[in-house]
Amino acid sequence: MDVPEVPSKVDPDALTAVLDGRWAELRRGVRAQMAEAQFRDPVDLGVEAHRAQVLDQLRALAGTDRPGLGFDPAYGGGGDVGGSVTSFEMLGYGDLSLMVKAGVQWGLFGGAVQLLGTARHHERYLRAIMDLDLLGCFAMTEHGHGSDVQHLRTTATFVDGGFVVHTPDAVAKKEYIGNAARDGRMAVVFAQLVTGGESRGVHAFLVPIRDDDSGAPLPGVSIEDCGPKAGLNGVDNGRLSFDNVRVPREALLNRFGDVAEDGTYSSPIESDSRRFFTMLGTLIRGRVSVAGSAGSATKRALALAIRYGELRRQFAKPDGDEVVVLDYLAHQRKLLPALAKTYALHFAQEELVSKLHDIDSSAPEEEQRELESRAAGLKALATWHATAAIQTAREACGGAGYLSENLLPGLKADTDVFTTFEGDNTVLLQLVAKGLLTSYKQDFEDLSPLATARFFAEQVVSAVLERTSARKAVELLTEASDTDAFFRRDWQLRLFEDREDHVVEGVAKRLRKAASDPFGVFNSAQDHVLRAGRVHVERLVLEAFASAIERCADPDARALLERVCDLYALSAIEEDLAWFLGHGRLTASRAKAVTSAVNRLCSELRPHARTLVDAFAIPEQFLAAPMLRS
Amino acid sequence: MDVPEVPSKVDPDALTAVLDGRWAELRRGVRAQMAEAQFRDPVDLGVEAHRAQVLDQLRALAGTDRPGLGFDPAYGGGGDVGGSVTSFEMLGYGDLSLMVKAGVQWGLFGGAVQLLGTARHHERYLRAIMDLDLLGCFAMTEHGHGSDVQHLRTTATFVDGGFVVHTPDAVAKKEYIGNAARDGRMAVVFAQLVTGGESRGVHAFLVPIRDDDSGAPLPGVSIEDCGPKAGLNGVDNGRLSFDNVRVPREALLNRFGDVAEDGTYSSPIESDSRRFFTMLGTLIRGRVSVAGSAGSATKRALALAIRYGELRRQFAKPDGDEVVVLDYLAHQRKLLPALAKTYALHFAQEELVSKLHDIDSSAPEEEQRELESRAAGLKALATWHATAAIQTAREACGGAGYLSENLLPGLKADTDVFTTFEGDNTVLLQLVAKGLLTSYKQDFEDLSPLATARFFAEQVVSAVLERTSARKAVELLTEASDTDAFFRRDWQLRLFEDREDHVVEGVAKRLRKAASDPFGVFNSAQDHVLRAGRVHVERLVLEAFASAIERCADPDARALLERVCDLYALSAIEEDLAWFLGHGRLTASRAKAVTSAVNRLCSELRPHARTLVDAFAIPEQFLAAPMLRS
Repeated sequence: MDVPEVPSKVDPDALTAVLDGRWAELRRGVRAQMAEAQFRDPVDLGVEAHRAQVLDQLRALAGTDRPGLGFDPAYGGGGDVGGSVTSFEMLGYGDLSLMVKAGVQWGLFGGAVQLLGTARHHERYLRAIMDLDLLGCFAMTEHGHGSDVQHLRTTATFVDGGFVVHTPDAVAKKEYIGNAARDGRMAVVFAQLVTGGESRGVHAFLVPIRDDDSGAPLPGVSIEDCGPKAGLNGVDNGRLSFDNVRVPREALLNRFGDVAEDGTYSSPIESDSRRFFTMLGTLIRGRVSVAGSAGSATKRALALAIRYGELRRQFAKPDGDEVVVLDYLAHQRKLLPALAKTYALHFAQEELVSKLHDIDSSAPEEEQRELESRAAGLKALATWHATAAIQTAREACGGAGYLSENLLPGLKADTDVFTTFEGDNTVLLQLVAKGLLTSYKQDFEDLSPLATARFFAEQVVSAVLERTSARKAVELLTEASDTDAFFRRDWQLRLFEDREDHVVEGVAKRLRKAASDPFGVFNSAQDHVLRAGRVHVERLVLEAFASAIERCADPDARALLERVCDLYALSAIEEDLAWFLGHGRLTASRAKAVTSAVNRLCSELRPHARTLVDAFAIPEQFLAAPMLRS
Repeated sequence: MDVPEVPSKVDPDALTAVLDGRWAELRRGVRAQMAEAQFRDPVDLGVEAHRAQVLDQLRALAGTDRPGLGFDPAYGGGGDVGGSVTSFEMLGYGDLSLMVKAGVQWGLFGGAVQLLGTARHHERYLRAIMDLDLLGCFAMTEHGHGSDVQHLRTTATFVDGGFVVHTPDAVAKKEYIGNAARDGRMAVVFAQLVTGGESRGVHAFLVPIRDDDSGAPLPGVSIEDCGPKAGLNGVDNGRLSFDNVRVPREALLNRFGDVAEDGTYSSPIESDSRRFFTMLGTLIRGRVSVAGSAGSATKRALALAIRYGELRRQFAKPDGDEVVVLDYLAHQRKLLPALAKTYALHFAQEELVSKLHDIDSSAPEEEQRELESRAAGLKALATWHATAAIQTAREACGGAGYLSENLLPGLKADTDVFTTFEGDNTVLLQLVAKGLLTSYKQDFEDLSPLATARFFAEQVVSAVLERTSARKAVELLTEASDTDAFFRRDWQLRLFEDREDHVVEGVAKRLRKAASDPFGVFNSAQDHVLRAGRVHVERLVLEAFASAIERCADPDARALLERVCDLYALSAIEEDLAWFLGHGRLTASRAKAVTSAVNRLCSELRPHARTLVDAFAIPEQFLAAPMLRS
């Protein structure tokens, strides 16, 4: 086998250089700031003290130029989208309440003003938002509409030269809104715009919610506190409702749709639905940031568990010494494939951030949508991985992992909502599948089953059909008879690609029958639809890992990353072994060889486990668990 | 197909009768008490208030005769082991801190006094323990020894007619001890007994830790609070250490080993190791109770998620109505197989409790050990299932599931430790596998890899070899060509049995090579060892479900349970599809048919989902989530 030996000791700094990538300097800057004592974890703080601490930390962040990175340089911003998203990712090493609160303020609220508003909003608000002189909320989700936000029910009706924002009933109450319960002074409120008696779909409005000085809710605005949550209790989530609250005509964030003084509606985008999904598309940074910080939290959990796994001993060996638990195969199997996947997702995330940074606003719509799809898919996989890996890390630390002081309970509780906020993962994977099936040519974020099913009832989907061939499958099978193939990147990549083609084709065939009963057909294929989304993203992730290795100049680090990538690929194959077996891509005996290869890789990577987590360069104060004092 | 139709509406009470089974009356009594306001959930209580509330609730329980059920009638107990364990299971519907605190007091502390002590201890303490006049701890786990308790390091040295209990260093500190931080007055302390300069292995000692009146730690006893935990914050876990604390000779719980006034040691069991594992074996009730209450918490989470899934609507159907989310296949797939498994585990638990209740103390040792193995295995599967199913239930409720008021965060956090306390699940499954391989003839709870591996190095394991045959596999495969076979209980049972035989045989073959390198051979087979434990328990679970159906007289309930059992069996097969494919038990096309069958069962059971959770008859105050007010 032509695989370079991994030296017995690899310098973690060489790995850090590859991991840090394009925004390495910015990452170092965030690490340095987060190492300050004031960014400490909130173990055992009450809700009010925690909220106060997070707001103080937010103000400390505002003292740097990083919060401005995502904003237009014309108004004092940095014009560095990639850096902005990366800095949210890095905050994920610390208290995730701070990451979320920063994300609400600068990513969602500020991002909406920047990207949905026009010069009049930018001039008036951007500087104050960057500096925290204006704290704001992003009020989209309603009690009755979370995934299906196109049908939210708050209204903004044009009357007498301004808008009246109104919550018609309890179902239309804005729900889980960050910054609402305590600190926010203004909200970007998403509402159905009504003018001239006609509804023009969902638009965003800037609505003051609290008196600047006293902090009391303004007349007509009702604010409730969502109360304690599983985690993220440093974020003041609340519910907002509006009783005929008047705002001026200029409160409309009017980049994609405007109302003239006489009430005439105009928009550069004709279709209400397409306009709304274009607006949503601009908000992609939120999802990208959630995926990134989910990755950071996962890294921290694995770093804690692997350090503990190297200290903790249990049961004596024949020679009398007690065995370090990370020397057990079962323990390696819990942590090392999860670590490999964390590396893989990291590189996929980095590639996504680069693409997001580089994309031109004049890029073709398909390209924009492909990027949105990638963000959606990676968010789903990264957050599910965080949930699973942090759970495993907790269990790998036994009783110690259950004590708050050892930090894993906080990580688990804080990240738990990541799988369902900023887009429910199940819905996001459907969106990914839809993009694959339509080559990103349909109204993209229209997630309803009906829209998907109807599309197939009306069209021939020849584009996706017959991309697969029996010949390719046989080739892959034949090559796999040699175990060396398992460790050849091109075989792995072709295997992932072939699986994706086959699954997508299968879904297309199923959905073609949708004319007679669109919902029924869509629903009975839903498991295949979700699988299509997942295997597509897994292919992108493997490709991203392979490209990152190509960029690695240090030969030792590179040799190690090659093995980590093998472990990612082979454990992903092992997880989906039933598919590969059931579709003739692997024989029974080769399937067993996959499991043996994963075991072998676990044992080869065991001596490098500590190096691999040290390479994340997590500030030590976020790893200061008493269980690690030996 | 000869399957009785399920009527459109099944009476949940008929199901409750089957579920409640042998201890139905007791279950009704617990439900009635738990419906009282004082047993409310602790949403948003601080640690101190929560601890106080749980102690008050514990006192209310002590006002009934249920805490005494597990104790000897000669001292005022009920002599009803099954009832005792079932009452702990039922407490799992409510605040799990109360279940754990009750378990510590009456199950572990009281159980140790009852089962490891003799008349002198029973006379003096049992009544006070039942009545809560004496609150106590079970101090086994040490900082350095959790799974490997045989090697714990606290010592009890016989000196001048009594014992000196001592913690030699920080590693020997008693860790995570329930009732220690606040309420306990006495502890059963497990320590290496030393007399005449010789160590006789681990024994249990009654050691007073606090002054009865003031609650201050007694001289020589140090008590620390473990501080906040992920969950179960109503339980006061602490750390105990002893600085040469003197207790009288009678403090030794001397059923299995005693020291005479002159220091002479005597025991009915010669081997130190066998004696210790016999002592541990008597404590089986704790594990059984954890499995049961994990089941109760799972039922509650699924009841919440299914009620919400029937209320929550998202995205419009062709006819304009918004779709109830439980009508989506993906949502059904999240919740219904989990519900079917919950039923299956319930019946397996009930069977286990009955066996535990009925076993005679004079039963052959193999029978005792088979029971211990079953308890260990079910505890592992039930608690992992709880972790996964409660996580899924939370995600199925989206943002609402993340708010503490909606109860799922508490369920998730409280049950999280179940997989690693009362025996780490990974270690427990090893124990199950070992029992299978040795036909329960070895020192049973000696969990060390060395002991397992050495056993195989020394013995021929013909007993387990060749139980499988190629003929059986071919028969199963042939029958499976007819989809009807999937719904035949006997085919399912034979398939599970065949899988178990094959896996156990494979492990035996691997371990036979252990002579040269016991640890290496054991370690490289560890994944197979764990699989053997798991598939064995899955077979027991399916058998228990099948037997329970036989006991069901109501034809409607029975027809419904048949389908639920099919869903359990087929989704378990689907989960392990790679094995069945890779070992020639299913062809590729039949594997796809398994997935279709699971989908079909989900859609058939969808209309009965609410009935199936209502049948658990969970007191409504534990389902009073605001998200369910519509």
